[in-house]
Amino acid sequence: MKTRLNLALVFCLLSAAARADEGMWMPQQIPQLAERLRAMGFRGEPQAFADLTGQPMGAIVSLGGCSASFVSPDGLIVTNHHCVQAALQFNSTPQKNLMEDGFLATARDQELTAGPGSRVYVTSSVVEVTGEISGKIDPKLDDRARHEVIEKRMKERTAACEKDGSRCRVASFFDGLKYYELAQMEIRDVRLVYAPSEGIGNFGGETDNWQWPRHTGDWSFYRAYVSPAGKSVPYAKENVPFKPKHWLKVSPEGAGPGDLVFVAGYPGKTQRFATYAQTKELYEWTFPRTVRRNTELIALLDEIGKKSKETELRVATRKRGLNNTLTNRKGVVEGFKKGDLLGMKEVMEKDLASWTAADPQRRKKYGDVLPALNAMQAGKEKTRDRDATLYDLLGAGGPTMAGGSSLLPAAHTLYVMSLERPKVDLDREPEYQERNWSRIREAQDRMQRSYDPGADRALLKYILVEASKLPAGQRIEALDKEAGFVSGMSEADAGKKADALCDRLYAGTKLGDKAARLQLLEKSTAEILAAKDPMIDLAAALDPLWQANRERAKTREGALERLGARYAEAVLEKSGGLTAPDANSTLRVTYGRILGVPARDGLVFSPQTTLAGVAEKATGSGEFNAPKKELDAIAAQKAGKKTPYLDPKLGSVPVNFLSTVDTTGGNSGSATLNAKGQLCGLLFDGTFDTVASDYLYDTEKTRSIHVDSRYMLWAMSEVDGATNILQEIGEAPSLDVSAPGR
Amino acid sequence: MKTRLNLALVFCLLSAAARADEGMWMPQQIPQLAERLRAMGFRGEPQAFADLTGQPMGAIVSLGGCSASFVSPDGLIVTNHHCVQAALQFNSTPQKNLMEDGFLATARDQELTAGPGSRVYVTSSVVEVTGEISGKIDPKLDDRARHEVIEKRMKERTAACEKDGSRCRVASFFDGLKYYELAQMEIRDVRLVYAPSEGIGNFGGETDNWQWPRHTGDWSFYRAYVSPAGKSVPYAKENVPFKPKHWLKVSPEGAGPGDLVFVAGYPGKTQRFATYAQTKELYEWTFPRTVRRNTELIALLDEIGKKSKETELRVATRKRGLNNTLTNRKGVVEGFKKGDLLGMKEVMEKDLASWTAADPQRRKKYGDVLPALNAMQAGKEKTRDRDATLYDLLGAGGPTMAGGSSLLPAAHTLYVMSLERPKVDLDREPEYQERNWSRIREAQDRMQRSYDPGADRALLKYILVEASKLPAGQRIEALDKEAGFVSGMSEADAGKKADALCDRLYAGTKLGDKAARLQLLEKSTAEILAAKDPMIDLAAALDPLWQANRERAKTREGALERLGARYAEAVLEKSGGLTAPDANSTLRVTYGRILGVPARDGLVFSPQTTLAGVAEKATGSGEFNAPKKELDAIAAQKAGKKTPYLDPKLGSVPVNFLSTVDTTGGNSGSATLNAKGQLCGLLFDGTFDTVASDYLYDTEKTRSIHVDSRYMLWAMSEVDGATNILQEIGEAPSLDVSAPGR
Repeated sequence: MKTRLNLALVFCLLSAAARADEGMWMPQQIPQLAERLRAMGFRGEPQAFADLTGQPMGAIVSLGGCSASFVSPDGLIVTNHHCVQAALQFNSTPQKNLMEDGFLATARDQELTAGPGSRVYVTSSVVEVTGEISGKIDPKLDDRARHEVIEKRMKERTAACEKDGSRCRVASFFDGLKYYELAQMEIRDVRLVYAPSEGIGNFGGETDNWQWPRHTGDWSFYRAYVSPAGKSVPYAKENVPFKPKHWLKVSPEGAGPGDLVFVAGYPGKTQRFATYAQTKELYEWTFPRTVRRNTELIALLDEIGKKSKETELRVATRKRGLNNTLTNRKGVVEGFKKGDLLGMKEVMEKDLASWTAADPQRRKKYGDVLPALNAMQAGKEKTRDRDATLYDLLGAGGPTMAGGSSLLPAAHTLYVMSLERPKVDLDREPEYQERNWSRIREAQDRMQRSYDPGADRALLKYILVEASKLPAGQRIEALDKEAGFVSGMSEADAGKKADALCDRLYAGTKLGDKAARLQLLEKSTAEILAAKDPMIDLAAALDPLWQANRERAKTREGALERLGARYAEAVLEKSGGLTAPDANSTLRVTYGRILGVPARDGLVFSPQTTLAGVAEKATGSGEFNAPKKELDAIAAQKAGKKTPYLDPKLGSVPVNFLSTVDTTGGNSGSATLNAKGQLCGLLFDGTFDTVASDYLYDTEKTRSIHVDSRYMLWAMSEVDGATNILQEIGEAPSLDVSAPGR
Repeated sequence: MKTRLNLALVFCLLSAAARADEGMWMPQQIPQLAERLRAMGFRGEPQAFADLTGQPMGAIVSLGGCSASFVSPDGLIVTNHHCVQAALQFNSTPQKNLMEDGFLATARDQELTAGPGSRVYVTSSVVEVTGEISGKIDPKLDDRARHEVIEKRMKERTAACEKDGSRCRVASFFDGLKYYELAQMEIRDVRLVYAPSEGIGNFGGETDNWQWPRHTGDWSFYRAYVSPAGKSVPYAKENVPFKPKHWLKVSPEGAGPGDLVFVAGYPGKTQRFATYAQTKELYEWTFPRTVRRNTELIALLDEIGKKSKETELRVATRKRGLNNTLTNRKGVVEGFKKGDLLGMKEVMEKDLASWTAADPQRRKKYGDVLPALNAMQAGKEKTRDRDATLYDLLGAGGPTMAGGSSLLPAAHTLYVMSLERPKVDLDREPEYQERNWSRIREAQDRMQRSYDPGADRALLKYILVEASKLPAGQRIEALDKEAGFVSGMSEADAGKKADALCDRLYAGTKLGDKAARLQLLEKSTAEILAAKDPMIDLAAALDPLWQANRERAKTREGALERLGARYAEAVLEKSGGLTAPDANSTLRVTYGRILGVPARDGLVFSPQTTLAGVAEKATGSGEFNAPKKELDAIAAQKAGKKTPYLDPKLGSVPVNFLSTVDTTGGNSGSATLNAKGQLCGLLFDGTFDTVASDYLYDTEKTRSIHVDSRYMLWAMSEVDGATNILQEIGEAPSLDVSAPGR
């Protein structure tokens, strides 16, 4: 208790500095922040962050969707437990459930492949290519043609960049104002090394997701493998650990309240430069729709999961994903409501309009932008119900799966692949270019692990019934024809029709069979259609609308590349300052302090949690099922057992902490660096009050949640006996195999 | 947000002083605490508290079960909303539900009688009478006889004291070590003046009970009436407001974080001087039994309440009481478990034993005490299941009702009354002495308001079935005979037998009729038995065991008066210091600071809540149904409407606050005084972590919850238009009847 009060004291003395710091900065922007960082007490060299192949940035990697970092010269990688979920599922069987039990390879040959599609991306270069991409475009081109030019230039640059075997991407920053070419080494042999059990790695489960106080041990370890010659190759027994040039030291000292911390990783997407109208649609239509749909889909999967343990396992990852998005979107909606964010956005936009109108130069430069963006938005909204439902049916059209069925999107992928394959590579849709073929194939392979016919059918039926309810002007006519839907029919009638269609689809389709699916991936359109697979036939019937939508989207993209860039430019010019671009899955650095936050009227979140809280929350089952071994170790620690990972101020081992750093989805697994540049934790979540910051940043309430490096080291030592890993990361220099309990 | 951070800062700067102060002090002890109070910054005169008829203590009154205080020269009394619940229920009809809507008399003639049995007790003198009660008792007397002597002396003193019309009581302090005679003026015409609606007065309901953050407007106003001659008389139209010598000023400034506050009131019962064995029984048997029973009884009442709005109203007060006890006991059990309080108690008792054993004098003085107390406790435990069940059936035997049926205890009261009436008053059981007859009568009258035949039958059946399950050595044989229970029978069979008995009881009894019941209260035993009322017959059949239990209890009492006093003496001598006695429903003063508290690992309770939190929690229905008028007023305040009750540091009106004062049940409604001696709030609850402090005080976690005087004044002014009351308490000197909104 005494220690808690000290904690509270520390927390509060820092309250004056409680404003969180907005900005997922491009690493090359960090040197420009030198003054701010020095004011926060940083004594290091900000320039170091700009060197993407130096220390520490050279150690930061992407897993595609999650962030991670090298922590040993032998390619050992640390990320979040929730980022290796698919690998755990891939290696689980009804007999041996790694998702529940965790996994530890005590020798290299025990390390398990993380499954097809698992990747580690090591950034090798970032070059600005704005002129090359958006320079000198004939202003007379219409938006569709303009987009074609930009897309073609991007493809050409990417192709040239990838000649040496890199994975490259040209990314837009500030909505098309700037372009950068990013080159990465793509490591394709990724292996699972260590994951704690679910009772540590996912302690708190959905109940604690986005919540504080938090006690989640959200870490796991991968290892990157390459060919003996050092090349990126698929999994092979003879492959050897990748030798990174840089790796992070996992800090046994961690960091405490008030300390400056950096987070380096790959934040996915924020939309802070969106217009009022765009934001309004998100708040009033997009998010509520997702909340409703995910709630219903989760209920469906819950019901289906009761059938068998195997089915439950198969749908677990997808359910977790749906739940995560659901909680996030609920938080966003609540955050918007509480903070009247839409009202604030409106004020900001009116300010921008006044600022523009106040000066003839600015009027000329930006006066037409907002009206044009608004007209575009209004046009898009006219068919949004239909378009979103089509997306739910077919997915993004690429290798990713939407929230609904897996089979119908797979069928559509096969069909589109057959249309795209005959083209010259540069003319193919970007996601179907040859560079993506192996990942399309792997996605179709990997899909099998989470595919459950009953669940798939139920999800498809759900979306079909949704489609039956579309308003008269927005029908998916091809589907109406296939299913026998008519506008205005009752839900019960639509359900019967959907059932009949599903009966036909699932009785006739071969796509649930992995081999059949992979085989069809190589076939021509004629061959595919000759298979008379009803799932493919439905996908083909829906494809014309999908293609038309893509065309419209490209026209909009062309307009956005033109208008969005100028809108962002106006915002930048008006703010007159150093501003970070919206997140776009590229490498970013954000900084802040470890700091609590007032949570609700009368309630304050203190900045750290400890082992004591794990024992407090543990129930022995369900989401709070801390392993007995951990509870015993906590009791031993409380009784005075020495550990080097104790925080003397807390009188316990710190478990999780809050910081003011600015992060979002994709940042999961990001290294949290202390002022020495050591890994003092892993970013794994944000508080519920934080999620709306993806759309309008809240400088007061935004807090990220991290797992403390000392909890990782303590659990590895006292609970999981991961001595080999401790030794490898330099935390247990002499391996005493005779020591009991290790 | 900014203001919240300031708050947190204030809170934390005080953390060093976060140890709560144990002690529900007798007012005459306060001067001895002068040094401690000065160290806490008190600049007033501690001696003032010792003067029970001076300022401020002369303004502090008891309602019997709740505390209250005079706030105007015209006998206006402020207490908690939950303390006037019975008065609201008494005046409610299905057409006009005062419990939901609240009540405001804008003129004296609109004030409503609070119902039979409502009392205001004004303490007039407190005199130590230890020698007179426990002095010079023949040491050769056995415990039963010893108790007889003490009881007789108490009765005699009480009778003498009450000659002038006072209500008197001789109370034991430190388990019989000391005795004091307390004289009170008993005001019998109590009227309801003002209660806010349920959406303010009980905002948060059961969900927030014992919780923080809290936003309950738990205040209401009574007025004390006396005859035109100033005598205490029952309700009469011509009665006039009582003129107290002292009343408190309701502070428009309140008090803030870090401020010293006093609470003056009538705490009911604590058991901090209990032995380890006594405490163990409470923790392991008594509380879990109550938790189970109340949970089941509440479920029963919930079900029954669904039948009709009228039934729901009738069972509301009892349900609230059961719920309150349930949550308290759950908190106690949890507190014991979390803090290993039993282990601490064991250590403390072992320390006491070692201290006793270490010195020959002490061995002689205290050596036999603990073994004798333990033997007594062991004896009592042998029949505890039976005795507790008999209590659940018949109640305390006096005018109070137990958790079960109301009719069977009523029957037993009538029966015992008929046995006691023929005796000389001094020979009667204390609770049946003539001085208590009017309250017995009022209780039987008042009972009608909450009596519902269906609910009563269901509750009785529940207890009957419980009785059927008693172990073989502890059967209630008379009941077995009446109901046809046999040891070891199935619950289903017992249910059928209980139903049959209930059919007979409720078909034949006239006791559900108020007039019949009150008439029988005057009858002889023969007349009562001649009525052949099956409920009375059952009570009479159960009475012999009840009488035998009372005899045993008196023997134990005699032993306790002898042993408990010496145990307390040993504890006092060992601690060597100034210690407060356990609470015993007498006037006490406790002091502390307004201060937050670390609540759980990673979570801190800040010391104040504000209007913002009311709006945050409001749902528009159920337990969080803040009135629209209040929400509008909060919005107006937020938009800048001026109010004298704003706390500039908070930027809002404070609603509730936490303090380190030491309080318990019975303290509800107690005046909270700031350093100026003004009423800055009302005590109304403690946090969940506090409740175990009734048994072993937790100096770190214990926090009381108060409603801020500024919230009271703000709501009276902005929501309820209680201008007449504001004027009476000196908050609205000129009544401008033309002002809108008042």
